[in-house]
Amino acid sequence: MKLAKGTQDIAPQDKIRKNKVVDTLREVFELYGFAPLETPIIERYETLTAKSAAGDSSDAFNEVFKLSDQGKRKLGLRFDLTVPLARYVAMNPNLKMPFKRYAVGRVFRDGPIKLGRTREFWQMDVDTVGTKNMLADTECLALADAAFTKLGFDVVIKVNNRKLLNGILEQAGIVKNRSNAIISIDKLAKIGREGVSKELKERGFGTKQISALFSILDGNTTLPKLKKIITTDLGKEGIEELAQVFSYLKSMNVQTAKFDVSLARGLGYYTGTVFEVFLKKGKITSSIAAGGRYDDMVGSFMGGGRIVPAVGISFGIVPIMETVKEMQEGEMKTSTKVLVIPLGTVNESLALVQQLRSMSVASELGMGKKGVSKNLQYANALGIPFVVILGEDELAKNKVLLRDMKTGDEKLISAAQLVKNIQ
Amino acid sequence: MKLAKGTQDIAPQDKIRKNKVVDTLREVFELYGFAPLETPIIERYETLTAKSAAGDSSDAFNEVFKLSDQGKRKLGLRFDLTVPLARYVAMNPNLKMPFKRYAVGRVFRDGPIKLGRTREFWQMDVDTVGTKNMLADTECLALADAAFTKLGFDVVIKVNNRKLLNGILEQAGIVKNRSNAIISIDKLAKIGREGVSKELKERGFGTKQISALFSILDGNTTLPKLKKIITTDLGKEGIEELAQVFSYLKSMNVQTAKFDVSLARGLGYYTGTVFEVFLKKGKITSSIAAGGRYDDMVGSFMGGGRIVPAVGISFGIVPIMETVKEMQEGEMKTSTKVLVIPLGTVNESLALVQQLRSMSVASELGMGKKGVSKNLQYANALGIPFVVILGEDELAKNKVLLRDMKTGDEKLISAAQLVKNIQ
Repeated sequence: MKLAKGTQDIAPQDKIRKNKVVDTLREVFELYGFAPLETPIIERYETLTAKSAAGDSSDAFNEVFKLSDQGKRKLGLRFDLTVPLARYVAMNPNLKMPFKRYAVGRVFRDGPIKLGRTREFWQMDVDTVGTKNMLADTECLALADAAFTKLGFDVVIKVNNRKLLNGILEQAGIVKNRSNAIISIDKLAKIGREGVSKELKERGFGTKQISALFSILDGNTTLPKLKKIITTDLGKEGIEELAQVFSYLKSMNVQTAKFDVSLARGLGYYTGTVFEVFLKKGKITSSIAAGGRYDDMVGSFMGGGRIVPAVGISFGIVPIMETVKEMQEGEMKTSTKVLVIPLGTVNESLALVQQLRSMSVASELGMGKKGVSKNLQYANALGIPFVVILGEDELAKNKVLLRDMKTGDEKLISAAQLVKNIQ
Repeated sequence: MKLAKGTQDIAPQDKIRKNKVVDTLREVFELYGFAPLETPIIERYETLTAKSAAGDSSDAFNEVFKLSDQGKRKLGLRFDLTVPLARYVAMNPNLKMPFKRYAVGRVFRDGPIKLGRTREFWQMDVDTVGTKNMLADTECLALADAAFTKLGFDVVIKVNNRKLLNGILEQAGIVKNRSNAIISIDKLAKIGREGVSKELKERGFGTKQISALFSILDGNTTLPKLKKIITTDLGKEGIEELAQVFSYLKSMNVQTAKFDVSLARGLGYYTGTVFEVFLKKGKITSSIAAGGRYDDMVGSFMGGGRIVPAVGISFGIVPIMETVKEMQEGEMKTSTKVLVIPLGTVNESLALVQQLRSMSVASELGMGKKGVSKNLQYANALGIPFVVILGEDELAKNKVLLRDMKTGDEKLISAAQLVKNIQ
């Protein structure tokens, strides 16, 4: 018995943690006015490989898991949650706009297995479709700030704008292959200015262009500084949009967002605001959430020259779960708070377990193990914090024996006192 | 743009409802001491088609969606949550027993599309692996009772035992093809005694056997009555197990479970207790949850002659969601409680929205729509119950205008009074 390559089981101790994180994030998404949408995992192959879906790196197409049904229809497993969103919007022309939705679910990529990369993984996406208003971009950032605050993460959200980047490229005389240049610029934090220069040269950009680019592109520059030197209309528009976003963020008291002109994002489909969330400290240096504005993709999916602006953020479940795991001490293999061990008192113990449950105390009855010590081992192995022993002696006294598994302390108390002691 | 055949989108108004049901059930499962386990959707084809997985009707094999990865490995999409559980237990020999897990997720069957049947659907399973103790069977029934009480459903849980059924068949002289006989008996409620008799004849059972069978098999019979007439060891063992379960259920004050000797369950792998949950009234006459004991399947999956007893229950998300939909009036397309409409007061409105959110009031800001009336239409279309209008006049007075969308009532109040009024 083996797992399929690139897939994994999430054992109870990890799944309990994951559920908590997912539930916390869902709560924040709804607090910000986003509603859940579920789309299927199986989509028509032609939907997944529609030209307009290409934004997400052309690799994605090669990595689509293909299958067919008994009717020989060509199908595939979704590789992200954005293409199904675009398909849903296209199929539902009467949706009230702006359409604010979040989605949580598995996506599939038949790609090489690298560190932390699996072929089946979860995504959590939050998107607003149908408005160009910078309020929508701002809400993504405020929501990310709230979500990570709630998770207890110390983050910085780097924010930039594709219009500004394109304006800078234009000003540096780079007209062709701008998306190639942007993919290189995106590596600035990783490989530094020299690395990016080298790569740009290899991609065919001129020395003059590159030095003009880096005369503007400085990770420490500010919006007021850029405002003085940017001359292209596109660049000015980008600065204007960023200024608006940061003005809104100030009103919302969101302090984790910082402008960073060197942030580019690899994906091709972004058209305006782009952002990535990083942890301030810890092992994980890649982004833990990221997103941006993609005003062309949804409309081009629908055809007929329609323009459907959109902006969204995607949360990386894997790095978030790794961070939560680092922050927490100990593991819970169950949510059970109390194990009741019956010693010749099964029926009375069942009544007690039901009483505990009626007071919202997650409880289970010892079964399949005989004797106290085996049951204590079970409680210990699973991390159940309390054990209640109900023997005939206790029963005669109308009491139960409560054992704190952490300290080993035992107390003979009444059933009524039990819940109080556990809480 | 189309969906793949046999798949569906769950729109926000349905997904909000579904999330609530799933969250409620998860809560009950954990209250009863079950921990969540996540297994992949993609499994190795040989795992899914292992002979021991055949219990779930042989159709399942023909209905496995097949696919392969870039390494040409043969893979498939899981068709239930029981086979992956057996695979997980087989791969983790050091699991502490009993292993009490629940699982929620999608399964896939490339079968014909009938009424309410899709090719991609959700299952929710709760299983206890590693004990023959009837307490585990009882807990399944108590958990079902608690879950449906929490959902506000009025149900009856029909309970029977395969050992008793086989004992009755033995007593009626039916030795061969008992599983065929059981599949026919399972239809008793649907097609009546005559229908079942006819089918049994067609399946080659003798008239004498059939009349002997029906002299015992009476839907209204009781355990005490059967105790007097059952002579086979197997039948007696079944009665003993049922008596124990009902004694435990009495201690737990579970009153919805009723013995029904005609309940059989179609699946081949059940070995002891079997049960199905039905609604007492309403359109849905098929079971909404069902399960039983399957002591042979997990062990035969592991090979080496190991015996790993197990018992579990599976909740039918589709009929449960249909029932919830019938019970509820109105639909919510969002969880948003308040829409704040800024009239020349975007920055102040953003601050107000953040204030509401900080008090756990799900709120959003009007964007993409100009003017009050378009925003009111938006709130109305989505079913947002309250709208707050913040114009310059209100701002000057340090007040906001609160509108109750249901009654149309408007009040000029302070921001501090706002939350109180909404709650």
